[in-house]
Amino acid sequence: MRQALHHIRVETRGHGFYEITQPVVSWARAQGIATGLLTLYCRHTSASLLIQENADPAVLRDLQAAFARLAPEGKGLYEHDSEGCDDMPAHIRAALTQTQLAIPVAHGAPALGTWQGVFLFEHRHGAHAREIVAHLIGA
Amino acid sequence: MRQALHHIRVETRGHGFYEITQPVVSWARAQGIATGLLTLYCRHTSASLLIQENADPAVLRDLQAAFARLAPEGKGLYEHDSEGCDDMPAHIRAALTQTQLAIPVAHGAPALGTWQGVFLFEHRHGAHAREIVAHLIGA
Amino acid sequence: MRQALHHIRVETRGHGFYEITQPVVSWARAQGIATGLLTLYCRHTSASLLIQENADPAVLRDLQAAFARLAPEGKGLYEHDSEGCDDMPAHIRAALTQTQLAIPVAHGAPALGTWQGVFLFEHRHGAHAREIVAHLIGA
Repeated sequence: MRQALHHIRVETRGHGFYEITQPVVSWARAQGIATGLLTLYCRHTSASLLIQENADPAVLRDLQAAFARLAPEGKGLYEHDSEGCDDMPAHIRAALTQTQLAIPVAHGAPALGTWQGVFLFEHRHGAHAREIVAHLIGA
Repeated sequence: MRQALHHIRVETRGHGFYEITQPVVSWARAQGIATGLLTLYCRHTSASLLIQENADPAVLRDLQAAFARLAPEGKGLYEHDSEGCDDMPAHIRAALTQTQLAIPVAHGAPALGTWQGVFLFEHRHGAHAREIVAHLIGA
Repeated sequence: MRQALHHIRVETRGHGFYEITQPVVSWARAQGIATGLLTLYCRHTSASLLIQENADPAVLRDLQAAFARLAPEGKGLYEHDSEGCDDMPAHIRAALTQTQLAIPVAHGAPALGTWQGVFLFEHRHGAHAREIVAHLIGA
């Protein structure tokens, strides 16, 4: 049984989805682990992780609009507003999605479904450097 | 330390909850691992996983109604509508719940609470064959 | 490769966030595992886990208000009301957040971000004894 740790840095340029499937799968495959468990962890509270369809980009636009409705932005809506009107909605959207994802590894690769992509979901308007920790255990 | 991988196939017949507690727990117990970690992974973006109360079926009906309100179905609501009016709400409901669950194993069985059941949450109207990957590591 | 299991008991006193970062990190550090994976699991369906900002307490108040809007309380709103008007909203809020969290361990400690705290999110009004199972695997 072996383990590997890795850091993936994503430079975001505002609210939206940033696909990280390729770097995640490449790194996992390169570890030479046939069977195991891959965990991805987002070290932030205003960005999160999501597994979603990566075929039609309209899905991602609709998802973004849905989260904008579920956790709206607006003056006077929140007590915590000192970090900008997009900060508190960002925390709520992060709470509604995932800080971490665990994906079994089979035949040397993460067992993603045919249409599944791994995304960093950036909830802030400005540019941010986001750090994701990848952990792999297996044999 | 050992690992085991398993595939659980669930034939769904429309929107709703499909309990998989029994096959999951039976398989995990049969691996003879006293202490470990069980991960369940749903290989789809319009179905998801949820741990919920399995005592009163009204809880599941209310949950279903709540997600129908949070991610409503309707003509003209979404840009992505080529796969049917239930497809985009399905992606949103999947994003709001879980693609994967990790459950510690203690005394040879998943450490579920007394009232906890494991459910596949099908978000599409039609019948689908859903695949869940189960991974167990421990000793 | 080694494993450790632990039970963390949280005595809640009504709806809100209960930070457990300190006991979780202390226990994980004390296991002497340099690299690994920490999993936290909540054995309840009306309380859940969340990683959120632990700097400004107003964030937690706003989060609580947001979940009260997303899954409102009220007579006649739900079929399942035999356990009190706060029970069904509790199940919905648990479904929208997390039953489990997995955090990679690096340099002997959980790889939490600078502003990240681990919270039990109690969704019921009354006092409850909540049990969280912690599992650590690594070397």
